Formats: sequence, C-alpha cells, structure tokens
Amino acid sequence: MYDFIIIGSGASGLSAAMYAARLNLKTAVIGEMPGGLITSTHVVENWPGTVSISGPDLGMALFEHATKAGAEFKNEKVLEVTKSEDGKIFTVKTASNEYQSKTILFATGTQHRSLDAKGIKEFENKGVSYCALCDGAFYKDKNVCIVGGGDSAAKEAIFLSQVATKVYIIVRKDVLRAEPRNQELIAAASNIEVLYNTEIAEVIGDDEGKKVAKILTKDGREFAVDGIFLAIGHMAQTELASKLGVELNQKGEIKISRHSETSVPGVYAAGDCADTEFKQAITGSAEGVTAAYYAFKYVQGGANF
Amino acid sequence: MYDFIIIGSGASGLSAAMYAARLNLKTAVIGEMPGGLITSTHVVENWPGTVSISGPDLGMALFEHATKAGAEFKNEKVLEVTKSEDGKIFTVKTASNEYQSKTILFATGTQHRSLDAKGIKEFENKGVSYCALCDGAFYKDKNVCIVGGGDSAAKEAIFLSQVATKVYIIVRKDVLRAEPRNQELIAAASNIEVLYNTEIAEVIGDDEGKKVAKILTKDGREFAVDGIFLAIGHMAQTELASKLGVELNQKGEIKISRHSETSVPGVYAAGDCADTEFKQAITGSAEGVTAAYYAFKYVQGGANF
Repeated sequence: MYDFIIIGSGASGLSAAMYAARLNLKTAVIGEMPGGLITSTHVVENWPGTVSISGPDLGMALFEHATKAGAEFKNEKVLEVTKSEDGKIFTVKTASNEYQSKTILFATGTQHRSLDAKGIKEFENKGVSYCALCDGAFYKDKNVCIVGGGDSAAKEAIFLSQVATKVYIIVRKDVLRAEPRNQELIAAASNIEVLYNTEIAEVIGDDEGKKVAKILTKDGREFAVDGIFLAIGHMAQTELASKLGVELNQKGEIKISRHSETSVPGVYAAGDCADTEFKQAITGSAEGVTAAYYAFKYVQGGANF
Repeated sequence: MYDFIIIGSGASGLSAAMYAARLNLKTAVIGEMPGGLITSTHVVENWPGTVSISGPDLGMALFEHATKAGAEFKNEKVLEVTKSEDGKIFTVKTASNEYQSKTILFATGTQHRSLDAKGIKEFENKGVSYCALCDGAFYKDKNVCIVGGGDSAAKEAIFLSQVATKVYIIVRKDVLRAEPRNQELIAAASNIEVLYNTEIAEVIGDDEGKKVAKILTKDGREFAVDGIFLAIGHMAQTELASKLGVELNQKGEIKISRHSETSVPGVYAAGDCADTEFKQAITGSAEGVTAAYYAFKYVQGGANF
C-alpha cells in the first residue's frame, strides 16, 4: 500500500515525488519516460537558478533527486485508475502490475499536435519548436514563422515580434481567429506578416542539415526562416483522471485548487494536465510540491499539518 | 520608467525578474540582500533537480540568472511605494532614489521571530533552525527540540517525530495551543515529550563549539539535543504593501489569486509575504514567475497573452 502514487514522470511528478519522499510518504512514480516532456527540449534557459541546461540533463536531475529522496520509479504505462467504494483506496493498473495507494497525483502532461509536413519531425529542436515563451529568446534578430490560425498562434507571434526581426503567421484558412486586442497588436506590429491560405509543404534545412533554413509552401512559395513554431493545439492527457470522476474544464484540463486538489478527495493534479493558464516547468514543479504537501496532510487524516 | 519593479531580492523576486526580463519587460529588483532568506540556510536539499546546494550558492545562482537575463539590481532599501491618481504609475522611493514603474511585485518575505537566549544566534545553522520541513531530514535518528506553544510548534514536532529519535516540545506556558487532531497525534507519538513551563536559558555546543549539543533551561535542567527548531512565529513583511492599499489576510499576509495578483491592479505578490499556506522556495519562485507573466499581460494593455 502506497501513500502517494504519481502518474507521470515529468518535472511536476518528479518534484512532487521528491517532496513526498522527504515527508516520509511511501511514494511511487509511474511513468513511461523519466524526465517527461522537458527531455525533448534542446536547451532550457528558464529554470530559475540555472542559466542554461539541456532538457535531458534537467529531466535526469529531477529524476535522480526524486529517487535519491526515496521515491520508487515504475517504468510502466498506466491503463486505469479506480477507487474503492468508500473512496479511500485507489488502485492503479498497468500492463504488468496493480498498485494500491491512499492518494493519487495526476501529472500526465499534454500531447502537442504536430504538423504533417515533410521535415517537421526531422527538425524538431533544430528550429521546430512548440513553445515561443520557452524558445523565443533563441531567435533574437532572426526570422521565424508561427503555424496556426487561433489565438495561441497570435499570442506567440506578438511575443516573438519583440525578439525576432520578422514573424510570419502561417494560417491555413483565410481568417485568423485571434482576440480583438491581439488582432490590433498584430496589425500594429511592423514585423508581423500574416500569410493566409497557406500551408507548409516542406521544411528545408541548411547545407549541413543541422538546422531549419527555409520553408516551402504547398503553393510553391519559399520563405527563409530560422525557427518554426507550431501552435496548432495540444491536448491535456486527462482520460485516466476523467474516468476516475475528476472534474475537467472545457479544454479537457483537470480543475485544481491553489492546493493542487481536484474535485475528488485524495486526488491531486499538477503541471500541464491541470487548468493553470501559464504552464511552465517551474509552475508545474511547484504544483507538484504543493500536491505532495496536501497529500501528506490528507494521509495524516486531517492533521492539518 | 520601468515595466516591472520587484521589491525583494529573494528566490521569489529573482525568479520573477528572470522571467520578466525574458519577456522583454524593463525590470528592476530592489533589495537589501541578493538571494534573500535562502542565503541564511546552510544546506538546501529540496530545490527540485538539485540534490544538495548551499543556501548562499542557490541565492547567487538565482541572482546571476536574473541579472544575466537583463534585470537590473538596485541594492537599496525601499521606504515607500505610492501610486498615481489614475493608478497606472507606481513610484518607489528608496533612501537615495525614486523609480517609476507600470507594475509592482512585492516579494518582501517574512521576518522570523528569534529567541532571546544565550547561544541562539551563535548556533544558527549549526543546529538552530526555523524550518522543520526544510531541515528536519538532517536530524534522522537524533534528538531535537521545538520551541513554541502554538499549532506551528505542534505540527513541526509531529513531522520531526517521524524522523528524529526523540522530540521535545518546549512550551513557556502550561498549555500547548495545538489543533485537536495535532494534540491527538502528539499524545499518540511515543517519542514526543512536551515540557511545559519551560524556557531555554542557554544553548551549549559540542567541545569544538561547532554544533548544538544540549540546552540548559531556566530552571536548571539539561537536555541533550542536536537540533533546536524555533516555532515562535514570524511576520510577513507587508507594511509597504499595506500602505499602498493592498489587501492583507488576518495574519498580515498579502492576499493573492492563482495569478499572483493582489487586490490592487498592476500589483502582484509572491513568496513568503503572500497568503500561500505552504511556503517553500520553489512555490515562491513559481508565484514570482506567474506574477511576471500577468504583469506582462497587464503592461500589454490586456493583450490577454
């Protein structure tokens, strides 16, 4: 019987695990990729106190911290989470095992939607990015494009226009569905150009194939860009939570309180799968830590520690 | 004119500064001690991803990250913060300067109440601590005492009883004002002993004077302890915020939303001075980062970035 089972082994889950183990909770982290999403990021420059670290190194540091503190790691895929009739015991089923726990933390993250175009996969982390806030600073005085027709694409373009020389917004349809204020800002920005009815056919690298150099559109135009930002959506991975009866918001994200509590007692959520608007590794980590603390209180039976 | 002035140069303020500078806000941090409270902690073992680091090293790492990202540091004491009649411009007065900003972050921390007993100051960080959650793990299988007669002292004792061999609670009066559940847990713990009507007269070190070895009480008793935890209260430093009209809770902490917003538009708070229950460096850091993001949105004039 565990005190605290964490589903997901990214920054949020591992930070929670480290704190929980230090609080003497019997803790397991179940995940498929130690370190999670951040390990797919080339360079992280916004983890406070660390000027620059590779995503894999940060992921491994968080993983080692959690396991050294005493949390167990199970490299398994969770298939189902159920609760006992009195709601006090949770059962976590994986392909090969079944675990029981007094509390659960969902730190299951999101899945980015990718673009079906030649070269996109090849140049991920070599110019193709999913996060302007994370990677925008690398494109100071360079040309970039944002792919997407929604408000996310608009916001990323506005942000990047303050850093990059030129910003193209590549919109598949003939309309950019951005909020009015963002429409205004885009219209006012001299270095943003919206390319309507445009789709990327191919990403073309430099001579050495090391980084993005240009894009080719389906109608045969070429644009020289150093960075391609995909803002065509992502989905919180919250199916397991939803099946357990945890309340989601309209975007499918898990609703949490400032205490990282969900609508189900003993069940917590943290990081990208939760309904926090500004999703960063550091905020998810803090949500995980907060969840560990309230799980500790819960397991103590209302000690209000 | 600054976009974002941060008052306080601890973990919360410096994390906010790093993010704000990366978001291209013109940012200044005004503080008296670069790194803040954490620099007075001997060893930090709960900063996610860092198994062990000295408090001063972590403080300096956060400071360097903020200034490298482009935030300015002003080593000054803030005397007053006022706002213009339309509430859009804030003026920050120090002894030697006056700065103007579109937004303000209070990251002013707390002040611990210390104990007036011989040796307390001398053995700070050599056995005298203010945080069981932070430092408790160093006292595995050792004897410790908690000084305090309130629920904080009770909670710290319960936590430490799971780690330490023996835990004394040193209570000045003849009653421990702890919540019922905590009273029960203390009564049930075989290794917690409450010493009523007891006050520490002196802290005595080991032969080399390097760490705490025992305490002497005012009525002449001696107890061998390796750690002394002071839980006699602390005060959020929120006078400047209060004078600006920012709403505080009953404990004198600044009320914040999940967006780190205070009751005054354009004014944010993060870290130990805010009303978050579980105050840790990592949670304060995330609150600072969140404040930077919402200040960015605010300065953009409601771009809803």
